[in-house]
Amino acid sequence: MKGCFITIEGPDGAGKTSVIQALVPKLSAALQQEVMATREPGGSRIAEKIRELILDPEHTEMDERTEALLYAAGRRQHLVEKVIPALEQGQIVISDRFVDSSLAYQGWARGVGMKEVAAINAFATENMSPDLTLYLDIEAKEGLARIQKGKADRQYDRLDQEELAFHEKVRDAYLLLLKENPERIVAIDASQTLEKVVQECYTVIMKQCN
Amino acid sequence: MKGCFITIEGPDGAGKTSVIQALVPKLSAALQQEVMATREPGGSRIAEKIRELILDPEHTEMDERTEALLYAAGRRQHLVEKVIPALEQGQIVISDRFVDSSLAYQGWARGVGMKEVAAINAFATENMSPDLTLYLDIEAKEGLARIQKGKADRQYDRLDQEELAFHEKVRDAYLLLLKENPERIVAIDASQTLEKVVQECYTVIMKQCN
Repeated sequence: MKGCFITIEGPDGAGKTSVIQALVPKLSAALQQEVMATREPGGSRIAEKIRELILDPEHTEMDERTEALLYAAGRRQHLVEKVIPALEQGQIVISDRFVDSSLAYQGWARGVGMKEVAAINAFATENMSPDLTLYLDIEAKEGLARIQKGKADRQYDRLDQEELAFHEKVRDAYLLLLKENPERIVAIDASQTLEKVVQECYTVIMKQCN
Repeated sequence: MKGCFITIEGPDGAGKTSVIQALVPKLSAALQQEVMATREPGGSRIAEKIRELILDPEHTEMDERTEALLYAAGRRQHLVEKVIPALEQGQIVISDRFVDSSLAYQGWARGVGMKEVAAINAFATENMSPDLTLYLDIEAKEGLARIQKGKADRQYDRLDQEELAFHEKVRDAYLLLLKENPERIVAIDASQTLEKVVQECYTVIMKQCN
């Protein structure tokens, strides 16, 4: 495919959304090329309905493997309807989360198994891999503190210990993925200023997708 | 698990529903044991919502792999909520369709790939296999004629050729599965009278699950 497929990964609070917002105009100006920022379900109505099903707070009986399969189904539909057509037109596509998120969250932190979750996602994507993945790395405590700050004025020490342990697992998984995929994943220190983070992402992308 | 897990497979028109209806009272009387007849989504509200999503006639843009993943997700939820608890209580569970249906329909007839569909279903079921599968075998033409008869008074020769080719593929897939799983799948000639078919199924089940 002519385009360039970039995924942005990292735990909640790493600043993915802000980074992508700043990156898109910067990249499209520099490359004189259309840059599409997306995230699942990304406007695909089927993927949207799948997402509603997953996130419905009433569905407390949802099994973790059901959830992983639903995420893979939504990903497939979004990929086929949105990502692949844009790449075929030669666009740069920046996706907020992709397969690595399922590996980290469902596969590792929820304990379903990374290999197992990788297998169903390989089915969903037909082994399509991003050209580049930027992993915004941040310590679990700091990431969580940022989220809490966004929500209310809660303090570190009031953070749920279970929540912290979960976010630490997510980070462990990302670091493992980084180690296993050095040719694809580039880690960016997300504890830096937004400006610095955006600049580093920009440099890596310009090198990879130009 | 204490119970016995039986799946009934076959193309549309093979008579699965009628056979199961007749089998349940016969088996529960003979074995003095509870027999649960089920079919996905089987009353699981999450599986029900997944099924609605798959079958919504408006969703013409649904990709075949998305569909296969959704079937696997619904299957997982039905299995965890309904089938496994019943088996743990020692019940006989008879399911109208299970993994083999996805292999035959999505995997083979729709061309997604049997191995690929088997892999996502192995994830969904954690490799749980039925103790026994009764495959109700009927020629595609005859099965289709029965469906048409049920719907209206249409004749053989007015059948859509594409529909016939599809049903022939489904049967080919079942015959392949039968060949590959002789220890699990028993073929029953479904062109016989209902009484005869039920009797043969009953004999096999009594041998296997008693």
